[in-house]
This record gives sequence, C-alpha cells and structure tokens, in this order.
Amino acid sequence: MNLQPAKPLDTIVWLNTDNPISLDALRGKVVLLEAFQMLCPACVSHSLPQAMRARQLFSEDDVAVIGLHTVFEHHGAQGTREALDAFLHEYRITFPVGIDRPSENGGPPATMTAYGMQGTPTTILIDRNGYLRKQKFGRDDDMLLGSEIMALLRERQAPQSQQNDKAGNDGCTDQGCPLPTT
Amino acid sequence: MNLQPAKPLDTIVWLNTDNPISLDALRGKVVLLEAFQMLCPACVSHSLPQAMRARQLFSEDDVAVIGLHTVFEHHGAQGTREALDAFLHEYRITFPVGIDRPSENGGPPATMTAYGMQGTPTTILIDRNGYLRKQKFGRDDDMLLGSEIMALLRERQAPQSQQNDKAGNDGCTDQGCPLPTT
Amino acid sequence: MNLQPAKPLDTIVWLNTDNPISLDALRGKVVLLEAFQMLCPACVSHSLPQAMRARQLFSEDDVAVIGLHTVFEHHGAQGTREALDAFLHEYRITFPVGIDRPSENGGPPATMTAYGMQGTPTTILIDRNGYLRKQKFGRDDDMLLGSEIMALLRERQAPQSQQNDKAGNDGCTDQGCPLPTT
Amino acid sequence: MNLQPAKPLDTIVWLNTDNPISLDALRGKVVLLEAFQMLCPACVSHSLPQAMRARQLFSEDDVAVIGLHTVFEHHGAQGTREALDAFLHEYRITFPVGIDRPSENGGPPATMTAYGMQGTPTTILIDRNGYLRKQKFGRDDDMLLGSEIMALLRERQAPQSQQNDKAGNDGCTDQGCPLPTT
Repeated sequence: MNLQPAKPLDTIVWLNTDNPISLDALRGKVVLLEAFQMLCPACVSHSLPQAMRARQLFSEDDVAVIGLHTVFEHHGAQGTREALDAFLHEYRITFPVGIDRPSENGGPPATMTAYGMQGTPTTILIDRNGYLRKQKFGRDDDMLLGSEIMALLRERQAPQSQQNDKAGNDGCTDQGCPLPTT
Repeated sequence: MNLQPAKPLDTIVWLNTDNPISLDALRGKVVLLEAFQMLCPACVSHSLPQAMRARQLFSEDDVAVIGLHTVFEHHGAQGTREALDAFLHEYRITFPVGIDRPSENGGPPATMTAYGMQGTPTTILIDRNGYLRKQKFGRDDDMLLGSEIMALLRERQAPQSQQNDKAGNDGCTDQGCPLPTT
Repeated sequence: MNLQPAKPLDTIVWLNTDNPISLDALRGKVVLLEAFQMLCPACVSHSLPQAMRARQLFSEDDVAVIGLHTVFEHHGAQGTREALDAFLHEYRITFPVGIDRPSENGGPPATMTAYGMQGTPTTILIDRNGYLRKQKFGRDDDMLLGSEIMALLRERQAPQSQQNDKAGNDGCTDQGCPLPTT
Repeated sequence: MNLQPAKPLDTIVWLNTDNPISLDALRGKVVLLEAFQMLCPACVSHSLPQAMRARQLFSEDDVAVIGLHTVFEHHGAQGTREALDAFLHEYRITFPVGIDRPSENGGPPATMTAYGMQGTPTTILIDRNGYLRKQKFGRDDDMLLGSEIMALLRERQAPQSQQNDKAGNDGCTDQGCPLPTT
C-alpha cells in the first residue's frame, strides 16, 4: 500500500498554544489529531476525554496531541473563537486546538475537506515521518488507540499501511456527527 | 416552616414550545425546573439527561419538565438564541427551555438572581400549589429526585418544608458551575 | 384491582441480621425485597448496588430493604451459606439476606416458586399493609423505583418496628483484594 | 535492567481449554496473564472485562490471554472447580483459566506466591521470549495496557502457536438470569 503524507492543517487561529502548530514542525513525533465540534455530543463525552487521556499517558516528547475544530454546522453557535475558548476552558481541554479554515461557500472547512473527513469526531494518527496512518470517523476504543500509538512510536521509518473507516448518516448520533450527504 | 411561592420565571424567549411558559399556568402540576448553561459540563453530562429521564418517566399531565438557560458567564459563546437552539437540537432536549433575562449590569440573569441560585445546574421542584419545595445546586441523585417528585404528586395541598443546599467555589467542577463569589 | 397479600418468605437461614425476618414483623413499613443470585451478573452490577442506594436513601423506620438468595442453578457453586457469606462480605451488602428454601426436586426454591418469579434479579415492593405491589424481573430504573417507594410511603400511616443493619470491614476495595498483612 | 524469566504456572486444572497451558508452549507470543478471584469485585467489574477486550482486540496468533484463579481467601466459597466453572459460564469468560495450586499451609496459592503478587486483580505481561515485563496489582488503564502489549509485540519476531477459545451459550444475559423454560 502507498502511504500518503498527511495534508497540512489549514487553520485560522490556534488556542492553548503561544505558537501556531504545523505538522512539519512535529516531524519526529507521533501526532494524534482529534477533529471535533464543540456541539457534537460524542466528541464531548468520548473523543475529547480520550484525547486528554492520551495526553496524560504519553510523553509530549513522543506524542503530540492536537485538536482541530472542524465546524460544518451551527456556525453561528460554535463558529467563533470566543465560543471555542469558553468551551475549552470549561471542559479543561489543555492541548493546542486549531480552528479549521471556514469554507467560503458554506461547505465543510478547509482541512476537513482536504482530509475527506466524514464528520466529527474523526481521530487521526500521523507517524514520525508525517504519513497519515489512521483516519477514523466515530468513537474509537481506548485499548486499540493506545496500541496504535505505540505501534507508531516503535517505528523509525518504513511505515506500512493506511487504515480507512467509514460510517455515516444524517444528524448527530451517539457515535458522532456525520457530514450531511449531498 | 413557611413555604414560599416560587417566583415567576423572567425570560426573554422560549424554545421547544409554541407558547411561553408561566408557572401560574402550570398550577396543579408538579414542576421540575432545571437551570443550566450549555457550557456547564455537569449540566450536559448529568442534569439535562436526568431531566429527560424525568420527562419520559412521568406523565405530562402530572409533571411539567422545563429548562431555564441561566447564562452568567461566557455570554458571547452561549448567550444567543442561536447557540442554545443548536445545543438543544444536537443534545435532543425536547422539553421547553426559557432563556433567563440577562442582567443589564453584567451580573447573573433575572430569574437566577430572584431565586438566589448558586450556579448551574440547579434543580428546582415546585408543588401543585406553586410553592418552591426544592432548590439544589449540583448533581442530584435519580432515586432521590424520583422519590421527591412522587411525594409532591401525592400531595394535594398543605406543603411542608423547604430544602436548601449549598455548594460553591470558582470555576466549573465535576459538580457544576458555581456563581463567582464577590 | 385486587391486591394480593405478599406470600411469606420461606427461608432456611438469614445473614446480616441477628434475627430471622418475617414479612409480618415488617407490617407498617414499605418493603423492598431484592431476589438475586450471587453468580447473576446483572444482580451484582445493577440490582444489589441499587438496593444499597435505596437502603442509604430511605430511613430504616420507613423502608425495609431485604435480600433473598434464590438459587436455581449452580447449586454447588453458590448454594452454600459459606459462599453467600463471602459474597456479601466482599460486595459490602449490609442489609439482611435470607436464603430461599431449596426445592427437594431440583426446581426453583420455595419462595421463588410461590411468587412465580421468572429469574434473577427480581425486584419486589410490598406496602405497609403487606400487599404485593410490584414484582419485576430484570434491571429496574432508579428514578422509577424511587418514585414507587415514595408512592407506597405516602399511602398510609403505620406503626413502626426496628431493623438492624451492619456495615464495614476491611478486605477487598474498589481497587482490588490485597493479601492480608501478616 | 535485568529481565527475569516469568516463573512457571503451577496449576491444578485448566478450564476453557482442552489442553493445559504452559508458558513454555506460549513462547513467541506476548502473554497477558490476569490473576483474579471470582469474589473480587474489581476483578469482576474491571479486570476480567478488560482481559476479554484484549482477547477481542489482538490476534490469538500474537497475544495469549489467560486467567489464573488465585484463591487466597473464602476457599470454601470460591475454591472449587465447580464454582469457577459456573462463574466463567455466567460471566462469559472464554479464555483459558488455570486454578492456582492451593497452599498446604493455608497461605496464598503456589503461583501467586512465586510471583510475589499482592492480591487480585494482578495484571501480568510476559514477552515473546518468556520474560516478565509487567506485574501490576489493582485496576489498570485500557490505553496504557494496549500500548504496553503493542510495545512487546513490536519487540521481536517469534514463532507461532495455536490457542483455542470457546464462546457462546444461553443463560444469564445483561438483563438477568431467566429460569430455564421447561
């Protein structure tokens, strides 16, 4: 299988960090990228707490945990920096979070579109060499995620495969918020 | 002990209902009033799901379940009708929710102030005669709440006592979001 | 509706109490009777903890909480007093528990048969006058059970009797079962 | 760090397997060994379900999951093969479980003593070459355990052997234990 380099993060602002984050600057670390929306129930109850557990379990020298706010609905309610700031504060999310660049035509934001994400939450793993190694829409299992991060940590190079999961329907469910089908 | 009549709800708009709600119009029913903020974690994970369970357990003829959005912080993020609308939609909250009238001086909103609430969530029970019978800040127990609602349902009149709970500190905790101390 | 008197408890021994329990002696109280088996997973994870919550919520003057060990399978594994004793100790069950009288022909035990129970857990409520008011097989909801107990409490005044509970010991904790220190 | 070879399992019988298990025969696989007692609440609610999740996540070709019943108290209640058999059946534990050899002087059983375990649950990891790599008393975290198993899996290639699991039966469900239909 051909591995693909993870596409750049196209964001308008970063919170919880003094400096903007770029994937290039994270080369050498395993990256856990959690795409979410603050009004996505499965993100709030499951994926963000899971990402915080990963932040606490792994060293920052080895694993970068970053969030990406991929607002594709309810822009007025959750689309502002102020709303996200308040959310991160109240939910005690301490890792850096970027706001995905809004589309000009009302579609999903830029990074979400570039990655072809199906909705939120989407959990992404990028290896030490910057290759996309996992992209999963919906709730993910702690034991599985822990094992996958460790598998990437134990690689130096020569990554092997890409994993692709699908899911989808309209309206947020217990599993997440899918993009509307068109 | 002297029972106090529950103070009127001073709201600017009602969602999930065609008509504004007044406590006077609910006389004869037991009222479960859940005061919350959409960015209060304990409200989202505990109290609103609990209120929905109450809605499903008791008949609408006997028990009115209503929400009150008492925004006292992060006004820009959670203070608009649009934000609350999106939240209620994604979290599947179907009972009527009123937006508490914002203070003009930046303090807590009108109904929250009138009731002397200490923060969110605050769970309130009002008896068939319009008297305030419970006001508790923080997470509440399902079995206790179920028993209290039934106790009020079995009354016709002659209520007896008022319950008062206290809690408090700054910043939202697992138990709720207290009002700032001044 | 014709109410039926709750049938007597036909037990061979009582644990967690100095004196055998009879329903007649509990007249005047609401009785929550939890029929269980120590190797029934839903009893262990749900119904016994729920009964303990009821024990803590309601006064012993008003509500008697009692267990009934209705062994209908795995008699060798869970049919002895010693096995039940160890179980009650490790799971911190402090209310009185009777062992249902074993059948002589290998069928379900005596009280289980008399009540026509379908299995374990079975949650039973008996009113202050000794009438059977609820009998449910399977998991039960906390809010519902709390409301039902209160409904029976509010039905009629009744005389009072005394129940004796014990609690507390060292041994297994939520974290595990440590070896005894020597 | 000096690694120590994992000591042999000294058991009197194996359940859920046609053939006794020896660590020597598992050389080449990572071994997750879960020491438990059937009357240990944290084993029942946490560690055994966790071990089952590991069984489902990892291939049997790579990871052997085995239980060890290390009875050090309540011997009469949980010390028999019959009791353990009933327990494994009702809790749907399908991986092989050995019964640790009882002490002749009333102390902890043989393997538990050889390993110096502090109680139950104790979670043990053994690498592909038979070395003891983790021994933890108490509840363990899913993400951590997943990462540790993967770290051992990535250490070295090794030959493969076959493990045999059984699953499935009727009887108790998540809702309770129904009487057999006749």
